[in-house]
Amino acid sequence: MRGKLLGFSIFGESHGKAVGVLIEGLPPGIEVSVEELKRELERRKGIERFSTKRRETDEPKILSGVFRGRTTGTPVVVIVENRDVDSSYYEEIRNTPRPGHADYPAGIKYFGYNDYRGGGHFSGRLTVGVVIAGYFAKKLLEREGIKVRAYLKRIGRVEAHVSPEELLSSKNPYCPDERAFDAMVEEMERARKAGDSVGGIVEAVAFNVPPGLGGPWEEDIEADIASALFRIPAVKGVEFGLGFGLAELRGSQANDSFVLKDGKVVTETNNHGGVLGGITTGMPLVVRAAFKPTPSIYLPQRTVDLGRMEEVTLRLRGRFDSCIVPKALPVVESAVAFVIADHLLRRRAWEGMAR
Amino acid sequence: MRGKLLGFSIFGESHGKAVGVLIEGLPPGIEVSVEELKRELERRKGIERFSTKRRETDEPKILSGVFRGRTTGTPVVVIVENRDVDSSYYEEIRNTPRPGHADYPAGIKYFGYNDYRGGGHFSGRLTVGVVIAGYFAKKLLEREGIKVRAYLKRIGRVEAHVSPEELLSSKNPYCPDERAFDAMVEEMERARKAGDSVGGIVEAVAFNVPPGLGGPWEEDIEADIASALFRIPAVKGVEFGLGFGLAELRGSQANDSFVLKDGKVVTETNNHGGVLGGITTGMPLVVRAAFKPTPSIYLPQRTVDLGRMEEVTLRLRGRFDSCIVPKALPVVESAVAFVIADHLLRRRAWEGMAR
Amino acid sequence: MRGKLLGFSIFGESHGKAVGVLIEGLPPGIEVSVEELKRELERRKGIERFSTKRRETDEPKILSGVFRGRTTGTPVVVIVENRDVDSSYYEEIRNTPRPGHADYPAGIKYFGYNDYRGGGHFSGRLTVGVVIAGYFAKKLLEREGIKVRAYLKRIGRVEAHVSPEELLSSKNPYCPDERAFDAMVEEMERARKAGDSVGGIVEAVAFNVPPGLGGPWEEDIEADIASALFRIPAVKGVEFGLGFGLAELRGSQANDSFVLKDGKVVTETNNHGGVLGGITTGMPLVVRAAFKPTPSIYLPQRTVDLGRMEEVTLRLRGRFDSCIVPKALPVVESAVAFVIADHLLRRRAWEGMAR
Amino acid sequence: MRGKLLGFSIFGESHGKAVGVLIEGLPPGIEVSVEELKRELERRKGIERFSTKRRETDEPKILSGVFRGRTTGTPVVVIVENRDVDSSYYEEIRNTPRPGHADYPAGIKYFGYNDYRGGGHFSGRLTVGVVIAGYFAKKLLEREGIKVRAYLKRIGRVEAHVSPEELLSSKNPYCPDERAFDAMVEEMERARKAGDSVGGIVEAVAFNVPPGLGGPWEEDIEADIASALFRIPAVKGVEFGLGFGLAELRGSQANDSFVLKDGKVVTETNNHGGVLGGITTGMPLVVRAAFKPTPSIYLPQRTVDLGRMEEVTLRLRGRFDSCIVPKALPVVESAVAFVIADHLLRRRAWEGMAR
Repeated sequence: MRGKLLGFSIFGESHGKAVGVLIEGLPPGIEVSVEELKRELERRKGIERFSTKRRETDEPKILSGVFRGRTTGTPVVVIVENRDVDSSYYEEIRNTPRPGHADYPAGIKYFGYNDYRGGGHFSGRLTVGVVIAGYFAKKLLEREGIKVRAYLKRIGRVEAHVSPEELLSSKNPYCPDERAFDAMVEEMERARKAGDSVGGIVEAVAFNVPPGLGGPWEEDIEADIASALFRIPAVKGVEFGLGFGLAELRGSQANDSFVLKDGKVVTETNNHGGVLGGITTGMPLVVRAAFKPTPSIYLPQRTVDLGRMEEVTLRLRGRFDSCIVPKALPVVESAVAFVIADHLLRRRAWEGMAR
Repeated sequence: MRGKLLGFSIFGESHGKAVGVLIEGLPPGIEVSVEELKRELERRKGIERFSTKRRETDEPKILSGVFRGRTTGTPVVVIVENRDVDSSYYEEIRNTPRPGHADYPAGIKYFGYNDYRGGGHFSGRLTVGVVIAGYFAKKLLEREGIKVRAYLKRIGRVEAHVSPEELLSSKNPYCPDERAFDAMVEEMERARKAGDSVGGIVEAVAFNVPPGLGGPWEEDIEADIASALFRIPAVKGVEFGLGFGLAELRGSQANDSFVLKDGKVVTETNNHGGVLGGITTGMPLVVRAAFKPTPSIYLPQRTVDLGRMEEVTLRLRGRFDSCIVPKALPVVESAVAFVIADHLLRRRAWEGMAR
Repeated sequence: MRGKLLGFSIFGESHGKAVGVLIEGLPPGIEVSVEELKRELERRKGIERFSTKRRETDEPKILSGVFRGRTTGTPVVVIVENRDVDSSYYEEIRNTPRPGHADYPAGIKYFGYNDYRGGGHFSGRLTVGVVIAGYFAKKLLEREGIKVRAYLKRIGRVEAHVSPEELLSSKNPYCPDERAFDAMVEEMERARKAGDSVGGIVEAVAFNVPPGLGGPWEEDIEADIASALFRIPAVKGVEFGLGFGLAELRGSQANDSFVLKDGKVVTETNNHGGVLGGITTGMPLVVRAAFKPTPSIYLPQRTVDLGRMEEVTLRLRGRFDSCIVPKALPVVESAVAFVIADHLLRRRAWEGMAR
Repeated sequence: MRGKLLGFSIFGESHGKAVGVLIEGLPPGIEVSVEELKRELERRKGIERFSTKRRETDEPKILSGVFRGRTTGTPVVVIVENRDVDSSYYEEIRNTPRPGHADYPAGIKYFGYNDYRGGGHFSGRLTVGVVIAGYFAKKLLEREGIKVRAYLKRIGRVEAHVSPEELLSSKNPYCPDERAFDAMVEEMERARKAGDSVGGIVEAVAFNVPPGLGGPWEEDIEADIASALFRIPAVKGVEFGLGFGLAELRGSQANDSFVLKDGKVVTETNNHGGVLGGITTGMPLVVRAAFKPTPSIYLPQRTVDLGRMEEVTLRLRGRFDSCIVPKALPVVESAVAFVIADHLLRRRAWEGMAR
């Protein structure tokens, strides 16, 4: 993700030495703690039963850019070393691209030179770097009173109904709608038992975002958030406010009326998810990302053996997530927080000149 | 839109001297014609009955970067001059931000210095620049056999069902599903008569895109396309392939099997819309953008008078689109084509080094 | 020039419809005047006797981004239309690249598709766009009390000796050292009479630049200024403070001692030109750009006829500058001012977060 | 350094955990070897007698982007861990900024949060990352037959005279002009004995660069090389070909005549250093960078105690380079090679489209 003033670069391969992130543009003086960061990384492990068993402890190692517990203003690099892994299985399936995975197009893009072991640079493990970048962005936003929270909006056919207020006060780390959450767990369990996987939707809400962040065209904050979210593996859709639902409405239903509340201008509804014309309105910023079901499943699948150029049946062995969506919560929060932090910095630049 | 090798910058205000676009990075030698470009701009006028009556002829003027009918390789600037317009009404409503419009957050972002007349830089008229940039990108793609086509997937509650083949051969410039199109026209007519507006969905398909364009993280072609689409005014959602529908599926339903067809590797279905892991697969690239109903309507709306800080009822006068979605077809095509052209150029760079 | 928050793109061809510039990132509310801008463009005409006779009036036309005499915060486009010109001579010499000009490598880069008439996009006329961008940047800096001034440091073998104070108070628009200036005029006159041209050095000083702008590596303000200056046609060298002279010194001679003056930390000397480690120190920023003699001369030269692939003698006809360095003064000021403005904005972003 | 297709980011602090670099955009399949890379890093140690005694072995650790001895096409990260160092002295001098160093402006830029130990992110040690990035770029260029070589052009008052051919065949790793080199060693020895330091100039030549790389304005290869070189600590001047010397010449002296040689178009002289109008001509690309004397010296210096705000005399203790210029040779080569590699990739993109 490269904003104008903040950017991060993800690096590493699943079975390489380490995965990590380089973050540029963070202002000096942000207090950070490795313990807090580890907790964020723990959240990325998801719900044990529906996640892969490779539950290595992710030990973040800050290589640069932090001094005496605060950012210095120079590039921050944090890595998590990979533990020794057995890559032999990936040699076996190297010629038979897994349906739904990047194996096939990646082989073409990289002319066959990519590290295919464990998905290489395409592995979900790389989201470690996003969560680290997001941690720093969240700490910056925290000082300004801005909070970003994500929850499971949908797993398969189960949808949760949650108000922004419920999200802020919820104790459940996955979904404030407890009844929906129970049904989601069942949905994931059914997929797991079937040797299958299931998709879902994550909704993130950013609270207390000041109005005036973003702009039209190149400055559009929705475009920047969408761009960051689509870079997360498995995301196939992004929408703001009522999103695709707005396509079915009349203007009279969709428009959010401006009203006064405690002397401040707010909108009565928030169908636009806190963004108009690419600029934040001061209302909660609401965005959703659709995750496809993780493509690694136990059920037999059809593919092509690229060596012999013939159709074959692929039966994957190993440990797979039955649902990656719970793991994605801190990743989505991170992407959203990072973009907002970049736009907040840009806003400060103009505020500092407007005299 | 700023890709790595291709970029364009939109400029102008609705009631200013001109609107236009600067395009950087176009390779030399692309044949272009002002007549063709005018035809593309005509498409942006939409269906007469549901569009604003200000039907000025858009006369594109190429200021630079084209010599003897071909691109030179230097920056291309094309402008369309604005005809004299009456801006007095915008003075009248200046203090009462229109619900659903950018008026309110724009005033904050620009500290009140923005040109508010006719929506200024936020006006839909600015999409002229996108269509111009897209025209050049399409001409480049054409030489490689790549075509991008968009149609009305949905207007309000009416959805069309169209296969990629039907799209390619369709004579109807708006929607190949004639029955759905008739119903869409009725839907727009109902909104118009009610003094209201209605939203919709545009689907774009890119044909003959080679596999290997894009990549993970910073290289992700879905992220770049989504980023370009969200910069189009009124877009509130973007999805690829089955998109949000994938969230409801099992992996066994979602995964596209690889099969052989005429000796080539293809997928049997195309649920992923031609992109896996951010990289094109060689299948048709399928993307949808959700447009909210245009916020300018004749029905009375509630807003706040920012001068007197009191709630008031706003009754807009003037000429409004009852549906902007038909106008958006060439705009969506343009955004998609431009991003593909950038990725194609990047691909050529690597191909040129891979020896 | 693309900074992080400010950028401009030059467009146009010497014999095309117009030349101009698109400027992005300018904050709203900067007061500008077309009259002032014209005066800046007049400065770019240089000293009449040593300049080309094509002395068309440059009428800047602001197409966007300015409303009621102030920037709006949206992209600014300003063009200057080209008057009708006779391009026939350029057909004649098309196959015989002019020594010292870009003709030969440009033909290769653009595969022959470039507009070669009058130098096309390589023409010095394109610096009109730089001066326009610089005008806006200077107006922004003016509000912060920052001034950028350039003068002729050298013409051929004549060097001027000027202190920063003399520069600020000078009435001579070209060089505060009147005696040196007289000798420079003679030097240019000698070149003119010989049918030849002569090079020179421009020194620019930025006064009242606050300390703390820039940074190491990607943030380096010297690198950004040098990058902007080298993009000006004919620049072949850039140095800060004593520049190349520092290479001959000992550390004890070069180091600028820190001392107190009126309770403020300053350096006693300014050998480093106001920049240490890529960051401004608060001392005047001093930079020099070396301009090669303009390559178009009346004396016969050797070149190759690319059509017949044989060596030929080229005798150029037309009107040439005998020295372009006086014309370059506002161009150099503009490039320096623009980069400082970008870094100032970036500084404001951090200041706005540092609480 | 951020080119359009290739970029690298330097990270780390002198007394932090590690220094290193992240490189983006490298095409897949480039053969690399850790042993070769170590040899490059050894070159960065300079001449033992004139360098700091902290001669730790730099063990590069490739964390990502290389698989089975070849680049994969994904981001490459290489780190060199710092050995334990004693930072206590830096506490002592924390309030007394060293003249010529970044201490003072860095304290302002980072609001006091920067890691000041050992120069932190400003330390010459960070050039490790540049050399690593340059190694990868050189391996890419090697496949195309392009070589970049740097040598000591000047140390203090001693200048070497070297033709491109001598440079290519030289056995002396510092300077092909053996007599000049002996005098340079004496010059450095004199500075060392005086407790002082001395500056110098590095000249780099790129051989076999194809014509057509670069362009005017944003594409200018001189501007991009200068930008990369000025980011190297201690560089205060950059020039191409005759550089500042061109300012003293007439056009008839400066212009390089085009002639035929073995049926190819070349220039008879190379006063422009292989670049015209920002585009390579096919002649050797010649660039020079001026290095100031390293500011850490044993002689007493004046500075200000920022705590007590009074002028004091600073007597530095520790181990200092008496001349850093020999160390800079691989750093300069790296910066030049990296920029050329970026432009070569961009050229391949256009070549791949020009049909």
